[in-house]
Amino acid sequence: MRIILAGLGVVGKSLVRLLHERSDELFKEYSIRPRIVAISDLSGSAIDTRGLDLKRVLDVKEKSGSISGYNKEVASLDTNELIEKTEAEVFVDATPTNVRDGEPGMTYLKHAMKFHKNVISVNKGPLALALPALTELAELNHIKLRFSGTVGGGTPMLEFGKRCLEGDHIVSIRGILNGTTNFMLTQMEEQGLSFDNALNLAKKKGYAEAEPSLDVDGIDAAAKLVIMANLVMGKKVTMKNVEVQGIRRVTPHDFVKAAKKGSTIRLIASVSDKLVVKPTEISIHDPLAVSGVLNAVTFTSKFAGDLTVVGAGAGGYETASAILRDMLDINESLVVAARN
Amino acid sequence: MRIILAGLGVVGKSLVRLLHERSDELFKEYSIRPRIVAISDLSGSAIDTRGLDLKRVLDVKEKSGSISGYNKEVASLDTNELIEKTEAEVFVDATPTNVRDGEPGMTYLKHAMKFHKNVISVNKGPLALALPALTELAELNHIKLRFSGTVGGGTPMLEFGKRCLEGDHIVSIRGILNGTTNFMLTQMEEQGLSFDNALNLAKKKGYAEAEPSLDVDGIDAAAKLVIMANLVMGKKVTMKNVEVQGIRRVTPHDFVKAAKKGSTIRLIASVSDKLVVKPTEISIHDPLAVSGVLNAVTFTSKFAGDLTVVGAGAGGYETASAILRDMLDINESLVVAARN
Repeated sequence: MRIILAGLGVVGKSLVRLLHERSDELFKEYSIRPRIVAISDLSGSAIDTRGLDLKRVLDVKEKSGSISGYNKEVASLDTNELIEKTEAEVFVDATPTNVRDGEPGMTYLKHAMKFHKNVISVNKGPLALALPALTELAELNHIKLRFSGTVGGGTPMLEFGKRCLEGDHIVSIRGILNGTTNFMLTQMEEQGLSFDNALNLAKKKGYAEAEPSLDVDGIDAAAKLVIMANLVMGKKVTMKNVEVQGIRRVTPHDFVKAAKKGSTIRLIASVSDKLVVKPTEISIHDPLAVSGVLNAVTFTSKFAGDLTVVGAGAGGYETASAILRDMLDINESLVVAARN
Repeated sequence: MRIILAGLGVVGKSLVRLLHERSDELFKEYSIRPRIVAISDLSGSAIDTRGLDLKRVLDVKEKSGSISGYNKEVASLDTNELIEKTEAEVFVDATPTNVRDGEPGMTYLKHAMKFHKNVISVNKGPLALALPALTELAELNHIKLRFSGTVGGGTPMLEFGKRCLEGDHIVSIRGILNGTTNFMLTQMEEQGLSFDNALNLAKKKGYAEAEPSLDVDGIDAAAKLVIMANLVMGKKVTMKNVEVQGIRRVTPHDFVKAAKKGSTIRLIASVSDKLVVKPTEISIHDPLAVSGVLNAVTFTSKFAGDLTVVGAGAGGYETASAILRDMLDINESLVVAARN
């Protein structure tokens, strides 16, 4: 399996490391030899049709901050050119999330599908903005579009909703889809911190970005909600269908009031008839009442009742392990196709 | 798909009702028409090779307490004879759990496999006592042995551990696998009830049996742990490999002491090197610290970290929905086999 990787940030590098470290094991257990044949980052690109030397990729990136030093002659190709010129079965989009217009990922995804590459994305932007259209495009081009790593980091939230409940129907989903804000709310609850102090602590711990709006205004949670609604419930919705309210107005006093009723406050993303993200009172006995940077999702099914999945919602290596799951899934379909 | 069903208790009846109610939907969505061609209960049996009239099955059982009134001429066949004489793709064992010798389920399972029927079991006894041997027997006879409903009721605990983490490795499992004792412990914690009073309340609510030993002595949890260890972690273990301690000696005072450390007490079943079931102090922030009759399982994976699944651990209809999942899984393999 030949792979083109766009984006060499935390997740991209983790994927390179994972494939490097687990190469022999993957061949032994799954008869699969993933080869990254091209990589692009903000400053350039590298190609080797026999498969890039992953150790060297990490070294070059570490030393120069860019992949462009890997092999000089092709360093100027951009991602779209890589997609056109490199033979590969899979394109992985690990470029940064942008929920305004989805770029540059949006263009890459469409380009990759047009050139009949299967697509694995961990970039929520294009999916949240246009998943119904992208799904159609994937079907039209007979390729697979997978994005396990976009929700729940390494926690298989999407797989659970999609694959573990065969024969049942998910009628609604409620969840905590953003670990940063859950950490902040937990600090407000347990330490009595104000929003600003909780945010500063989250920044200090590396959970929040310098520009924290994606997290604290509920946009990241909304993007993940859109992805779940499409994949798990078959709804054709995008970001503009979500009512979003972040946690800026939550105070420690709100937690004191909630506690008197046996409740706590969490940033709950939910989908049934409507898609809503907003701070919500829930019982302290609700399985969603998790603390810290965890993510948690409750699927309400028609026959098996309420089912909750809890796990770490982020982490480069965890998210890379979700990309690997998608690769194995795509590989299986390639094997079946080759047999028929 | 033709089915022989042994056992017409809560789960067996729920399965009949589910297949009756969802017949059209199952055909529409999965192109599957499950027909129950034979049923046995404690007092007799019924056969119709075209498929029993499920409405009538429920009526006859309701009125007479037995299936033997359905069609007089074959009412005397026992389950082993049904297995021998009835053409069917699937045998469903919904007979009561017995963890001493696994009977009568043990004999039925072996007999069904010998006659090349795929097997779906919701009876923990035979599996807990002999899963490694039964798995071998299934492979030898080229049939599928499925048992999704034995752990977590309708909650897909086994599927999650087995199917949602492709490419990863489960290194340990910890969980609350018995809802009855979790209800009792929650009552001891929140209402200060003694063990005896908590047990009486559980009996009154219908959660505990008249003979509660299976639950309160940790045997039910141990049986489920054995099943998980075999299926999810590939360990070849049985009941005799489990160190078991129940909740009889837990007191409300233990909860007061634990609370001072930010902890609570739950009956935790765990498997890593050893298999252990015993009352254990866990943090109140542990996702396993669920209240009431819930079940919860944390899978520790090598790459994606700790992943917890929470859901109702029992219920006839929920467990029947797990049987349906197994049927769809078996049906898929039959379709693939027919195609090749």
